[in-house]
Amino acid sequence: MSGTGSAVGEITIDTIDGGVTAPAGFRSAGVHAGIKKSPTALDLTIISADSGATAAGIFTTNLAQAAPVLVSRRHLEQTGGRAAGIVVNAGCANACTGDDGLRNALRMAAETAGALGCATEQVLVASTGVIGVGLPMDRVVPGIRTAAAGLARGNGSDTARAIMTTDPFPKERAIRVHTSRGSFAIGGTAKGSGMIEPNMATMLGFLTTDAQVSPTLLRRALVDSARDTFNAITVDGECSTNDCLFALASGASGVAIDEDSYPALLAGMLDVSRELAIGIVRGGEGATKLIAITVRDARDSDDARRVARTIANSPLVKTAVHGADPNWGRIVAAAGRSGGSFEIARTTVRVGGVLLFENGLPHDESAAEAAGHLQGSEIQITVDLGTGQRGEATIWTCDLTAEYVRINGEYRT
Amino acid sequence: MSGTGSAVGEITIDTIDGGVTAPAGFRSAGVHAGIKKSPTALDLTIISADSGATAAGIFTTNLAQAAPVLVSRRHLEQTGGRAAGIVVNAGCANACTGDDGLRNALRMAAETAGALGCATEQVLVASTGVIGVGLPMDRVVPGIRTAAAGLARGNGSDTARAIMTTDPFPKERAIRVHTSRGSFAIGGTAKGSGMIEPNMATMLGFLTTDAQVSPTLLRRALVDSARDTFNAITVDGECSTNDCLFALASGASGVAIDEDSYPALLAGMLDVSRELAIGIVRGGEGATKLIAITVRDARDSDDARRVARTIANSPLVKTAVHGADPNWGRIVAAAGRSGGSFEIARTTVRVGGVLLFENGLPHDESAAEAAGHLQGSEIQITVDLGTGQRGEATIWTCDLTAEYVRINGEYRT
Repeated sequence: MSGTGSAVGEITIDTIDGGVTAPAGFRSAGVHAGIKKSPTALDLTIISADSGATAAGIFTTNLAQAAPVLVSRRHLEQTGGRAAGIVVNAGCANACTGDDGLRNALRMAAETAGALGCATEQVLVASTGVIGVGLPMDRVVPGIRTAAAGLARGNGSDTARAIMTTDPFPKERAIRVHTSRGSFAIGGTAKGSGMIEPNMATMLGFLTTDAQVSPTLLRRALVDSARDTFNAITVDGECSTNDCLFALASGASGVAIDEDSYPALLAGMLDVSRELAIGIVRGGEGATKLIAITVRDARDSDDARRVARTIANSPLVKTAVHGADPNWGRIVAAAGRSGGSFEIARTTVRVGGVLLFENGLPHDESAAEAAGHLQGSEIQITVDLGTGQRGEATIWTCDLTAEYVRINGEYRT
Repeated sequence: MSGTGSAVGEITIDTIDGGVTAPAGFRSAGVHAGIKKSPTALDLTIISADSGATAAGIFTTNLAQAAPVLVSRRHLEQTGGRAAGIVVNAGCANACTGDDGLRNALRMAAETAGALGCATEQVLVASTGVIGVGLPMDRVVPGIRTAAAGLARGNGSDTARAIMTTDPFPKERAIRVHTSRGSFAIGGTAKGSGMIEPNMATMLGFLTTDAQVSPTLLRRALVDSARDTFNAITVDGECSTNDCLFALASGASGVAIDEDSYPALLAGMLDVSRELAIGIVRGGEGATKLIAITVRDARDSDDARRVARTIANSPLVKTAVHGADPNWGRIVAAAGRSGGSFEIARTTVRVGGVLLFENGLPHDESAAEAAGHLQGSEIQITVDLGTGQRGEATIWTCDLTAEYVRINGEYRT
C-alpha cells in the first residue's frame, strides 16, 4: 500500500486480485482457438465491458502498421472514444497481409460485436505473432464464439496467458485506489518481447478501470502514464508493426474523475503500467538483468529521456552490464552522442549508487564496488548532467546476451 | 583499374603499393613505444609531410571529445588547414583525462614538431585505446623520437599496424589516379572497431595525396567522400570519443586540383576510403558477414541514408542475417520506424537480388533461395521505397553475433 496527497485528499493504493477483470463491469475469457502451433495453448481472448466503456488507445509509431492497428484506430475515431470490448489473438500478427488482412481484422471485430450484441466499431482488435501470414479465420471465428460464450469475472489470468507469445511469464496487475470520493479499481495485462516467430517484439497492453472517466481524460491519463512506463522501456530499440495499448473505463464504481481527482486516476494507472512495463523488460529476449537508467539534472525531461534512452539502447552498455563490467566510459560516450545537452566536465556517473565518474575524471578506486552491484539482477545506473536544470527521466532496459542472438538468429522453420 | 569520364577527360585508377607513403612527399615510421601491453606490438606512428601539406579533418560528433580531438581541431583552425605531420598512438585513448590529458596531447604535438622541425600547430594528434587512463608520457616521448629518426618512404604498412587495437587485420590502400593533366597518388590507412579494452570502437583514418589541393577543396573532398564511405558504415551504432579522419595533400605530383579536376580527386578519395571503410566493417567485433544495405527510390538521398542506417543498426536484422534467416518482416519494420518517408504498399525488399516482399505482400516462395544467399559472407539487402523520387544510399554493416557479446561483455581486467 502506498500513499500520496492530492486535491482529493490522501490517495492510497492496495494491490488486489483479478487482473483486467478486477474492476466492476468487465468480464473476459481466454480460449485455445488453434492459432498457435501448441495443441493446448490459449491464443484468443475477449475483454468485454458489459455496459460499454469509454476507451482510449495508443498505437505503434511504425509506419508499417498491421491491419488490427488500422482497424482499431478507425473504430476509436468513429465512436469518439467508446468501446464494448476488445478481441485479441496471439500466434499471428496479421501484419503485411494487404487487403485480405484488413478484411480479416474487421471480421474479428464484427464476429465479436455479433456475440456481444454491440456495433462493430465498438470492438477494438489486437494481434501478435508471426507476420506476413494470413489469419486462419476458420479457427479464429469459432474461437471468438467460444470465448464470448465463456465470459466471466474470474478469467483475468486466462486473458494474461492468451496474449503471450514467447513471453516467459504472464504479466497482470490490479489495484484499488482509495480517495476521499470513494474507491475504484484498475486492472491490466501486457505482453512483451519474446517472439521467436517471426521475431517481432510486439508490445500489447490492456488496462481496465471502473472509474467514471470521459474519453478525453482517459486518453490524457493513458498518454501521461505511458510516457513514464510503457514508453520508457526498451529491449532492443525496435518498434513493432502491432504495438498497442488500450484503456477502457466502465464507470461501474460510480467514482467520477474530473480535474480535481485526475491525480488519483493517474497515480493508479502509473502504478499498474509501471509493474506491467517492468515485467516486459524482465521477460525480454535473453535478458538476465533489469537495468534502470536514471538521468538527472538535465535541461528538461525530454532531454533526460533522450540521454537515458541512448544509454539504454547502447549495445556496448548492455553487454558491459551483462559482463558485470563497471564501464563508465561506455555510459559517458553514449550520453555524449545522444543529442541531448551534455558537458563532460559537469557529468557524474553512478552505478548502484557508487560514484564512478565525476567532473570529467574517473574514480577507478570504486570499480570493484560497482562491479559487485553489477553481479546482481537489478541494476541502477544514474547519470547527473549537472546543467542546473531539473529535467529527470528513467528508462528501463535489460542486458544484451548471447541468448538474445541465439533466439533471434534462429531460422524461422 | 576502373575508368570514369569527367571534365578532365577519362579518369583511370590503378592500385599501387605503399599505403600512406605511396604519394610523393610523405614518409612514416611505426614503432613499439610500450603503450600497448604486448612487449613487441607497434603502438606509435608519425606520418610526415616533408615539405608541408594542406590538411583537412573530420571529427567525432560525440560531445565527449578526447584530448587529441580537441588539440587537432584547434591546430587545423590555427593553421587554416596546413600540417607537416600526424602523430598517432594506440593503446591509450587519452579520453576522459581532464586537463592532464590536454597537456599530454599538446606535448605529443610539440615533441613531434621539435623532431620534424615545424611549429607545434602544424602537427595533428590522434589516439585510440583504453579511456580514462593517462598517457604514459615517459614511453610516448621516447617513442616519438625513435619514430621521427626512422621516417622512410617504405613504412606505410608499419603505420597501418601501429594504429591497430584489436583490429583483426591492418587496413591500407594506395592508388594512382590518371587524368589528362597527369597522374597523382592517394594512400590511406584506417583502424576500426575491435577494442576490448576499454571497448570503445574508435575509428581513425589517415589519407595522403601528392595532388596539389587547396585546404578548401581538400576539406570538400574529405567531407564528400566520407559521406558515402567512412560515414556510411556502422558496426553497432556507437560513435566514439576519439573518431577522426585526416587528409594531407603534399602537392609533390605537380597536378593541381581545381573545380574542373575535382571529380578526379573525389573519385580517388572515394575509392581509397570505400576499401578502408569496408575493411573496418569486415573486421568488426565478432563479425562473420559483410552486409550492404542499399535503399533506392527514396524521397532524397538523406532519407535513403536514414532508412538504410536504421536497418543496418537493427539488432533484429543483424541477428537474422547471422542466422541466414530471410526475415523481410524485420527489414520492413525497421524501415517503417526509421523516420524516413515510407509506404508499405509501395515497398519492395530484395535479399541477394531475390524478391521477398512487394506491394505490401510477401513472396514466401523465394525464402529458400534468399536463405542460400544469406549463407555466404557478403550479403546484399536492397529496399526500394517506390516514392518515384531518385534518392539512393548504401550503408555497410556486419552481423550481430554471440562473439560480439562475448568480446564486449568481458571484464576489463
